[in-house]
Amino acid sequence: MHFKYVVAIVRADVLGELEAMFGSLHVRGITVTKVMGFGEYTDFFSSNHLTEHIKVEIFVEESKAEAITNAIMDAAHSDVPGAGIVAVMPVETFLHIRTRSETLPDGA
Amino acid sequence: MHFKYVVAIVRADVLGELEAMFGSLHVRGITVTKVMGFGEYTDFFSSNHLTEHIKVEIFVEESKAEAITNAIMDAAHSDVPGAGIVAVMPVETFLHIRTRSETLPDGA
Amino acid sequence: MHFKYVVAIVRADVLGELEAMFGSLHVRGITVTKVMGFGEYTDFFSSNHLTEHIKVEIFVEESKAEAITNAIMDAAHSDVPGAGIVAVMPVETFLHIRTRSETLPDGA
Repeated sequence: MHFKYVVAIVRADVLGELEAMFGSLHVRGITVTKVMGFGEYTDFFSSNHLTEHIKVEIFVEESKAEAITNAIMDAAHSDVPGAGIVAVMPVETFLHIRTRSETLPDGA
Repeated sequence: MHFKYVVAIVRADVLGELEAMFGSLHVRGITVTKVMGFGEYTDFFSSNHLTEHIKVEIFVEESKAEAITNAIMDAAHSDVPGAGIVAVMPVETFLHIRTRSETLPDGA
Repeated sequence: MHFKYVVAIVRADVLGELEAMFGSLHVRGITVTKVMGFGEYTDFFSSNHLTEHIKVEIFVEESKAEAITNAIMDAAHSDVPGAGIVAVMPVETFLHIRTRSETLPDGA
């Protein structure tokens, strides 16, 4: 199995919509971090230009990466600057610590 | 020299054990971030499903990546959901800012 | 267009200098996270060895990656341990959520 590392930087207020979407796509886990940014990731023109966004990180099977990327864009889309970005990066090894393998028990 | 980027999402209470293990493996540096997550990364079934884990990031020489991955699984292992994950990703360039090179002075 | 993922772990007090530098290099966005670390990333010998640094993440066109890496080393350079590290990693897909493409409108 091949995995991809999907990273999105989005406005903090889209987290709820992202979580609902990940549930419907059977994403098994996500990581969320509060980040600060400037430029397109936030509002370049605000006086407090280091405003708060969230970084969402997901390790997914390669076959799901494009669907998840599209779903993130749907959930976080906005026509104003600061909507954020999404990126897909290669992963060489991915292991669940509980099973010491790429997979989890069925239904777990 | 080739480097790998090792990322682990683990329960916050295993940090002490991880640090001791990294010392014995001569890991030169780690980065720790508090993260929130859901799914296998935490407890999918808790009512407060965005619970706190830590993300541990390490840049290591390729030859050490497997030993470090195994050591993280030993330190963080648990049979219950939420034990976390570990991943290894490729690195094209890695530089210490102090020496502007891949290496540090001996003994530093 | 190919993108790279540039990650730097640096002392928190260099953020202002980094931001000025990114502006002059026309970097469109950066993400900043407070992190804790030990080893070369911070001061291995301090009693409070998990001291605060920042992680700076930038997605850049491949053609700019080396200039940005060098600029980060210039801004964050120090001869004492804890100056930090900079790494460049491959990116397979990079999309602005606002435009659903790799690019932004001119002048935006």
